[in-house]
Amino acid sequence: MTLQSQARFITLEGGEGAGKSTVLSALRGFLAERGFEVVSTREPGGTPLAEQIRGLLLDTHHESPSAEAELLLMFAARAQHVREVILPALQRGAWVISDRFTDSSYAYQGAGRGLDPDFIATLEHRVVGIAPAMTLLLDIGVAHARERTRGRDLVPGGNGPDRIEREQDHFFERVRAGFLARAEAEPGRFRVIDATQSVEAVATQAVTCLRALVAA
Amino acid sequence: MTLQSQARFITLEGGEGAGKSTVLSALRGFLAERGFEVVSTREPGGTPLAEQIRGLLLDTHHESPSAEAELLLMFAARAQHVREVILPALQRGAWVISDRFTDSSYAYQGAGRGLDPDFIATLEHRVVGIAPAMTLLLDIGVAHARERTRGRDLVPGGNGPDRIEREQDHFFERVRAGFLARAEAEPGRFRVIDATQSVEAVATQAVTCLRALVAA
Ligand SMILES: Nc1ncnc2c1ncn2[C@@H]1O[C@H](COP(=O)(O)OP(=O)(O)OP(=O)(O)O)[C@@H](O)[C@H]1O
Ligand SMILES: Nc1ncnc2c1ncn2[C@@H]1O[C@H](COP(=O)(O)OP(=O)(O)OP(=O)(O)O)[C@@H](O)[C@H]1O
Ligand SMILES: [Mg+2]
Ligand SMILES: [Mg+2]
Repeated sequence: MTLQSQARFITLEGGEGAGKSTVLSALRGFLAERGFEVVSTREPGGTPLAEQIRGLLLDTHHESPSAEAELLLMFAARAQHVREVILPALQRGAWVISDRFTDSSYAYQGAGRGLDPDFIATLEHRVVGIAPAMTLLLDIGVAHARERTRGRDLVPGGNGPDRIEREQDHFFERVRAGFLARAEAEPGRFRVIDATQSVEAVATQAVTCLRALVAA
Repeated sequence: MTLQSQARFITLEGGEGAGKSTVLSALRGFLAERGFEVVSTREPGGTPLAEQIRGLLLDTHHESPSAEAELLLMFAARAQHVREVILPALQRGAWVISDRFTDSSYAYQGAGRGLDPDFIATLEHRVVGIAPAMTLLLDIGVAHARERTRGRDLVPGGNGPDRIEREQDHFFERVRAGFLARAEAEPGRFRVIDATQSVEAVATQAVTCLRALVAA
């Protein structure tokens, strides 16, 4: 079984605080200015049921899922997201930009938690079936990214870091290495961006990648 | 990979209204009278997180999961149930009786919804890893079982049938055939009980099976 690569489907990957949400709005603006319909979405989540699953995954107050349950919940949410949101949007000609997608499962549940990548690949083929045309990986050191999100985690009255964000640095080091290994294995799909640059420099580089894809 | 068969772990299977809950209390009583610790539990559910997943699975008011998402949610709940409840109870020497377990996924998501049993077996091996020593299959025709639950579904102020209970008869015919095929494939583990008999006759037969297991 091979995954169906989807033109006009772009994903943003990288650790917490790498700048995915910031880049997403730059890409969205670029496409919207040119008159394209753009659906921007995120994982885990993107449909009402998938957002409820996200709630179970990130909750810090109750029972934590085991690594295996976490993986299956991620893919259950993704199955809904693909079927209810991503494929219908692509089929009517819209562009879809997702803040995280399957690569995050390989990086977090695979490299991070140590689950077998072959099992993740089975789930990807059985319940996802599609891959983005282009994936932008925003790469940044763990300590540097933590500095960026520290302010956000201390907002008075805020929720603080979610269950996965509470992991230790060595977990996030494995996640970062997992993302870089994915990019190395699929150089045709991935563009790795040095996310330590200024917001403007990162956005410009991301938009340049997108411009090339739109022109292709 | 093979599944680890667990002594003192018993599951009850069969369609809606077959009499699983009724038999469960008879088996529980038999073991409790003999001084054994008994943990009785159910699927989907059995832990706080798994019960929340059950809520998403059976909800009739919001977005329905696709067949694939339904399967993954069932196994995410089961992974928690095995790890948090079933294995700890077995390890301290208790008996565990579960109202439904993995066979229900083969019958409902496999035979009922048409998902590939090989994929279900992969999930079973990867995230469950254990099998009951004995499974009692309560077999009854679909129309007959519907008569039994009709009263319950009409309780004023009740919730009525859940999302899966709302399926059509031909779905439940496939589920019944799926259960019988499982029993035929694993005659050492399964005991098939004619669930059209009286409550007393069914309970007596179930307790006879359990007595043989306790003595073994
Ligand atoms: N290139 C950059 N240089 C400096 N700060 C940045 C840069 N990009 C984003 N930021 C800031 O860093 C923080 C994290 O950025 P953002 O929310 O876009 O990251 P994210 O990858 O979406 O994080 P999360 O995974 O937590 O959603 C924000 O405060 C944002 O303004
Ligand atoms: N052998 C029997 N003969 C007649 N009625 C029965 C018998 N066993 C159970 N019942 C009745 O049928 C109904 C369904 O039984 P029960 O709730 O035990 O089934 P169940 O398999 O647990 O159903 P569900 O899957 O919906 O939980 C109940 O009203 C119960 O009292
Ligand atoms: Mg973000
Ligand atoms: Mg019952």
